[in-house]
Amino acid sequence: MSQPEHPPGRYRVVDLIRKKRDGGALSSAEIAFLVNAYTRGDVPDYQVAAWLMAVVLRGMTREETAALTHAMLYSGEVLDLSSVPGPKVDKHSTGGVGDKTSLVLAPLIAAGGVYVPMISGRGLGHTGGTLDKLESIPGFRVNLAVPEFRRVLAGCGCSMIGQTEQIAPADRKLYALRDVTGTVESPFLICASIMSKKLAEGTDALVLDVKTGSGAFMKREEDAIFLAELMVETGERMGKQMVALITNMDEPLGHMVGNALEVEESIQVLQGGGPPDLRELCLELAAWMLQRGGAAKTVPEGRKLAEALLASGKAFAKFVQLVEQQGGDVSTIHDPRRLPHAKQRVVVASPRAGFVRAIQCEQVGTACVILGGGREKKEDSIDPAVGMVVHKKVGDQISAGEPLVTIHCHSEAQAGRAKKLLEESYDIADAPPARKKPLVHRVIHKEEH
Amino acid sequence: MSQPEHPPGRYRVVDLIRKKRDGGALSSAEIAFLVNAYTRGDVPDYQVAAWLMAVVLRGMTREETAALTHAMLYSGEVLDLSSVPGPKVDKHSTGGVGDKTSLVLAPLIAAGGVYVPMISGRGLGHTGGTLDKLESIPGFRVNLAVPEFRRVLAGCGCSMIGQTEQIAPADRKLYALRDVTGTVESPFLICASIMSKKLAEGTDALVLDVKTGSGAFMKREEDAIFLAELMVETGERMGKQMVALITNMDEPLGHMVGNALEVEESIQVLQGGGPPDLRELCLELAAWMLQRGGAAKTVPEGRKLAEALLASGKAFAKFVQLVEQQGGDVSTIHDPRRLPHAKQRVVVASPRAGFVRAIQCEQVGTACVILGGGREKKEDSIDPAVGMVVHKKVGDQISAGEPLVTIHCHSEAQAGRAKKLLEESYDIADAPPARKKPLVHRVIHKEEH
Repeated sequence: MSQPEHPPGRYRVVDLIRKKRDGGALSSAEIAFLVNAYTRGDVPDYQVAAWLMAVVLRGMTREETAALTHAMLYSGEVLDLSSVPGPKVDKHSTGGVGDKTSLVLAPLIAAGGVYVPMISGRGLGHTGGTLDKLESIPGFRVNLAVPEFRRVLAGCGCSMIGQTEQIAPADRKLYALRDVTGTVESPFLICASIMSKKLAEGTDALVLDVKTGSGAFMKREEDAIFLAELMVETGERMGKQMVALITNMDEPLGHMVGNALEVEESIQVLQGGGPPDLRELCLELAAWMLQRGGAAKTVPEGRKLAEALLASGKAFAKFVQLVEQQGGDVSTIHDPRRLPHAKQRVVVASPRAGFVRAIQCEQVGTACVILGGGREKKEDSIDPAVGMVVHKKVGDQISAGEPLVTIHCHSEAQAGRAKKLLEESYDIADAPPARKKPLVHRVIHKEEH
Repeated sequence: MSQPEHPPGRYRVVDLIRKKRDGGALSSAEIAFLVNAYTRGDVPDYQVAAWLMAVVLRGMTREETAALTHAMLYSGEVLDLSSVPGPKVDKHSTGGVGDKTSLVLAPLIAAGGVYVPMISGRGLGHTGGTLDKLESIPGFRVNLAVPEFRRVLAGCGCSMIGQTEQIAPADRKLYALRDVTGTVESPFLICASIMSKKLAEGTDALVLDVKTGSGAFMKREEDAIFLAELMVETGERMGKQMVALITNMDEPLGHMVGNALEVEESIQVLQGGGPPDLRELCLELAAWMLQRGGAAKTVPEGRKLAEALLASGKAFAKFVQLVEQQGGDVSTIHDPRRLPHAKQRVVVASPRAGFVRAIQCEQVGTACVILGGGREKKEDSIDPAVGMVVHKKVGDQISAGEPLVTIHCHSEAQAGRAKKLLEESYDIADAPPARKKPLVHRVIHKEEH
């Protein structure tokens, strides 16, 4: 390898790598130079890989994290939503199993009069993705161009699309490199990646759902809190209203895991029903979104408003409108039996009587991937129909032979490995766990004056 | 970037990177896999760059260091010198300013009846290189093919060549990557790089000269000791007799710095004269080499033998033979005025009376590079004639205006920047330094039983 040509600029890349390697902090100008030169293709992957590993092991200051986020954000298009009047609010989740809150929240908040410009991702690994769930609605288009996104948002109050090529190209390039160089697991890099994409959608406020537990990327609560604080501070430095909820992901959220099944369960919540934990988390997140968006003076008032919007059918009506505007078959929303369905049912039964002491929640997500409902690699295609209904959750009492989970699949053979994984994921004991963790562990936001 | 194809083998490279990132130790099989796959081109630079940075920041165990050395050594040709009867000994220096001991030691040890198969490097940065010095002898060929190297070694007792393409290709590829990714400065990587090349030359014993001080790569003595112990242990694990001397590099060795000038000073030592510090270090290193090679029972006996070989002219005669065998113009050895010379002399005078308290020795080496006597980049060519004579060393008394250094160059203009640097490199005080460091700080070797 020859010494790479110096990209035009005042810095030598190797000096920036060495500075971080030795525990120093790069200036905003140095970080902007590195990100821009890399995105243009003027800095080779191997130099950025070395710098990324130094960041993973040395960390970053708050200033560096904000500078990285800023540079990645402005590597691409930042949506101008000034033509859409009124405050815009969005929510971002760090990913979990059975987490379909976005499908409930976008129409619910829009029904409350606050705009939700939501740009979401696809599932990867054991966690599902909002885009995949939406695409299980026949005809639903997630790839709207920006003018149409803006039009749906203005007309409907919310729009839900995927990341365009123009948004944060630096993040796309950096993430692909991190994925193959063991440099994904850094709160600083995760923060910059999430925030650069989310801030590109032109939102004024962002409510973060940072998950912790056996089904989350952050297994340890202190890691989740660290990341949440970092994202809240970074967003505030960039002029956004921020709040983060640390929430429990020790078991799937709700009962349904799998794309069409999760749409079905979202509809239950939007119609005023649904499982208590899913409904509760939606209401907590909605309360903050409505307050941040100015539709409620306080968070408790926001919660009351959200409850009313679910009870009145206004939230559901907004979801129907959204689906219609984005080309989806509305009849499937009114009658979820028309959503893609897998005919075969395979029951995972409890081997003994007792109580569910714990669930290895990541394994439940992995079981869904094995069925074809998620991706191991980015290129994998998704089967919207497969998935599972989780009957028993942490603390539930069970008798021997009682169903723990019902797998939805196309043949009994297909369920084999998933069934085994689900059996192993349940820890059944004589007594219930001493204490079930609360759904919302804590709320992180700036002191309000 | 897409996920790279897995190189054939049992491991995923990203898992190996993550293991090191998290502070784990790779197995010998994992390290061999990584090095071999990289050398073949089956693993991309960016993955190895991330792994190298993780090694820099996490370190390596002794087992990993030996495994890396082994894998790099066997990435290429390991010379078979079994046709040359008797023990073979070599010396390696970590590099300094005015360090011309190799030119003295190879013929001196050969004159004592011990074979010296010496494969050396070129100068880079502020340090000189043995090959560049040898090439200032008109006609001297350092690029002998292996059969000729073996023939000169058998006939003359020593041969001095450069690294062939076939020796340790993994090191060449890794070093080029380290150079541009800020991953040069790791004792583990330095050890593996040095030892893989040195062990490829088929020597039985290796005497290491690990330099510390203002002109060395290891400025801090504890870093030099750490590296020395690592290399001694690594060599012993691979069945070699090892010893390391930690030696002083707070000032240039001898008086002459520059390629032809250093050949001239080496000849002085080989003829029984030369500056005391250079002669002393040659004798100390020779004592160990002769003892390790079996020509002397003890190190003190080795020293006596070395003194005798210098005094008798046998060492000098061996040097003449070596130069002749490798195509050099022997008349320049008998009359060093026939070596390349620069006509212009520029004197660096002392601004005041006093004592030399310290010399920024690295700056002296850099001054030589600026004159054209060394390389900033690998591709740079070398001017053999330029350099300098250092008159005053640490502890010396001086009067105002007395010459500190005489620069040898082709024009006064050429000397400008080098002169300024040399002026700045001298620290002159009213009193001499409290204590001048000894030439040999300590000797590191395994307890002998």
